[in-house]
Amino acid sequence: MRAYDLIKRKRDGGRLAQEEIAAFLDAYTRGDIPDYQASAMLMAIFFRGMDAAELAAWTRAMLESGEVLDLSDIPGVKVDKHSTGGVGDKVSIPLVPLVMACGVKVPMIAGRGLGHTGGTIDKLEAIPGFSVELGVDRFRRQVSEIGAALIGQTAELAPADRKLYALRDATATVESIPLISSSILSKKLAEGCDALVLDVKVGQGAFMKDLGQARELARTMVDLGRQMGRRMVALLTGMEQPLGRAVGNALEVVESIEVLRGGGPEDLEHLTVELGAEMLVLGEAVANLESGRDRIRAAIADGSGLRAFEALVEAQGGDPRVVREPERLPRAPRTEVVRAPSAGYVVGIQAEEVGLAAMTLGAGRSRKEDPIDPAVGFVLQRKVGDRVEPGEPLAIAHLPDGRPSADALSRLLAAFTIAEEAPRQPPLVLERIA
Amino acid sequence: MRAYDLIKRKRDGGRLAQEEIAAFLDAYTRGDIPDYQASAMLMAIFFRGMDAAELAAWTRAMLESGEVLDLSDIPGVKVDKHSTGGVGDKVSIPLVPLVMACGVKVPMIAGRGLGHTGGTIDKLEAIPGFSVELGVDRFRRQVSEIGAALIGQTAELAPADRKLYALRDATATVESIPLISSSILSKKLAEGCDALVLDVKVGQGAFMKDLGQARELARTMVDLGRQMGRRMVALLTGMEQPLGRAVGNALEVVESIEVLRGGGPEDLEHLTVELGAEMLVLGEAVANLESGRDRIRAAIADGSGLRAFEALVEAQGGDPRVVREPERLPRAPRTEVVRAPSAGYVVGIQAEEVGLAAMTLGAGRSRKEDPIDPAVGFVLQRKVGDRVEPGEPLAIAHLPDGRPSADALSRLLAAFTIAEEAPRQPPLVLERIA
Repeated sequence: MRAYDLIKRKRDGGRLAQEEIAAFLDAYTRGDIPDYQASAMLMAIFFRGMDAAELAAWTRAMLESGEVLDLSDIPGVKVDKHSTGGVGDKVSIPLVPLVMACGVKVPMIAGRGLGHTGGTIDKLEAIPGFSVELGVDRFRRQVSEIGAALIGQTAELAPADRKLYALRDATATVESIPLISSSILSKKLAEGCDALVLDVKVGQGAFMKDLGQARELARTMVDLGRQMGRRMVALLTGMEQPLGRAVGNALEVVESIEVLRGGGPEDLEHLTVELGAEMLVLGEAVANLESGRDRIRAAIADGSGLRAFEALVEAQGGDPRVVREPERLPRAPRTEVVRAPSAGYVVGIQAEEVGLAAMTLGAGRSRKEDPIDPAVGFVLQRKVGDRVEPGEPLAIAHLPDGRPSADALSRLLAAFTIAEEAPRQPPLVLERIA
Repeated sequence: MRAYDLIKRKRDGGRLAQEEIAAFLDAYTRGDIPDYQASAMLMAIFFRGMDAAELAAWTRAMLESGEVLDLSDIPGVKVDKHSTGGVGDKVSIPLVPLVMACGVKVPMIAGRGLGHTGGTIDKLEAIPGFSVELGVDRFRRQVSEIGAALIGQTAELAPADRKLYALRDATATVESIPLISSSILSKKLAEGCDALVLDVKVGQGAFMKDLGQARELARTMVDLGRQMGRRMVALLTGMEQPLGRAVGNALEVVESIEVLRGGGPEDLEHLTVELGAEMLVLGEAVANLESGRDRIRAAIADGSGLRAFEALVEAQGGDPRVVREPERLPRAPRTEVVRAPSAGYVVGIQAEEVGLAAMTLGAGRSRKEDPIDPAVGFVLQRKVGDRVEPGEPLAIAHLPDGRPSADALSRLLAAFTIAEEAPRQPPLVLERIA
């Protein structure tokens, strides 16, 4: 195997054999193929794509570059969920305990935020004491004992993906459907799940800006996962405006607890119920989606989801009192109200701009090594379709001390579009791909 | 300027501004942009190309990455020739002294061979004492004093191209018309010529396998050079079979001297006359191509080309006696005759295979650091169109001591195709692009 020949063949639209892909990625992970050859290959893949067999081989090679958890000794179907990332997307936090409360095991390895989108792991770390670095043995034991665990990525799982992702991030080769699919699935399959529900975000605030691309990504991942022996479903869901009202780490934990208490924002609760129902069907806890929705709603109503969240927080070293007393979470030293400049209907809230405004407050990272301020962010007071009068609050900004925040506030305000006519409300779940 | 943004824009088919290209290449040459970002950019350019303004900016940035010779104080139009490379292409060796003898100055910086094609510099080094590393000051002085100099590439000229070429060579991004064009022209324009004749080889033994590609490359280079203020002409010439009869460094010098003496192979003499006529027209020594051809032929007939070659060899420290006594050149310790296995007409001699067979004897390099044996190679005894009887010689192989050569000989034999019917002879000069 000469790296040059494989790059050239891919560049010219040829196929790579399974053994060639395995050898290439193995040599790259070991450092025998330099970054500059790998980035040329990635750019060639960006343009030429990969067929189903190449994609499966590429994913398998990344998966097998590290440890692959075997959870088969834990009874039942292990089901995970993955979101392609959006603004205000804290669904995993209420979802995992609700599914857990319904008796389906959830082994979840989640990511950190970068750029305008947040990460579940950063949000959970807003809970005092909560550890997202359990190591794979404790992860496995916790899934077995309490039914779920929610940790950050570890160096043991899919190290080839880790190395390759950093390279893609520096070489403008992130936005490739086969490379995205193989990156997501190699990490998700390494954690040992049997089934996976994908939440593929579509819209201005998502990675995939249009429905056609999102559909292609979802289709590719569903087929790929199935080819690798997993049960797969994907929902395409809207990400034009932020999901829920809270954007910012501790603020999103608070809102997640509101969902578990039955008082969360409608869109967030709706998506939690839909994704939960899919997970319960894949996990064989219910026979169909309608029963799944009922079960998730019941776990909200009877408090079993909230108790499951307490158990999860406690198991991972966090202070379980935050679940009943969210005021124990970090709080920003000051707040400011962002007010409507004119009357009308909110017809748009650009999610990406809200995410970037929160990032500049310190809620997110522009570079991997940036620190995060768990307390800051926004709580939207109006969402798309709401009526507003001049001077009424659009959002409450939770601000850091000492850091100038005028730019963030004007960016947030600019994210709102107010018009005379009420907008048509698009559905949150756009399509289901199974 | 963020390298990432420029890569992404090029990847998505956008345009790069002149200042952006200059900053990117400057940062790359200084080492501030890593190889892995440069290779991603190169692959994006492979797929997206560059428009005329981008190409001029890219070329200018490479040109200005190092010293740019100013020969304007030397009277007259300075004219150079560049070949895209073929097998047996020793044209520069008779051409430079012939043009010099006709009163046109030739500042030529030539390349070394790699793979199946030879390099003028390696061939000249077969002459005892001949130095191809004069340094730019002596190069300039020699052009001024005797009318020509013929040296190898130096670190001072276009260092960005040198660095980028090594990267392209490792990342399968060589075969891109804008990248080839800018690489060739940045080096050629750095040497200070006012006019350039391009010999773009087409065919099985050339870099460009088909006429359409070769035409596009020639058109791109002619337009680019003209945009940068140089007079430009390109000839597309056939490279199906080797040019002339000799393939191997000293053997090609011998054949070059035969051309200067008026006894060279017909195809090689023909091409030398055609390219020489173009150079004389660009150099304003003659009014039209027909007069140019006459002048070159006269410089062969009256021995002035041969004397100019003696002057050139002497000026560069070589033993000028080799010009009258070619037996002073390195000679292989043994020869072997490769004989025809059957009767018929030679209908094809695959140039690439002949070049590779010579390379395995030691006449060329498979890697940059390989040493070269100046004496070994082949002298073809039959060319396409010639009749041959079984057992008659097809070629004489000049072989090294101690190195097994059976593979090279069978490879050479396999390069010949013998058939019953005489082939149609394609013209050597296929097109002229001005």
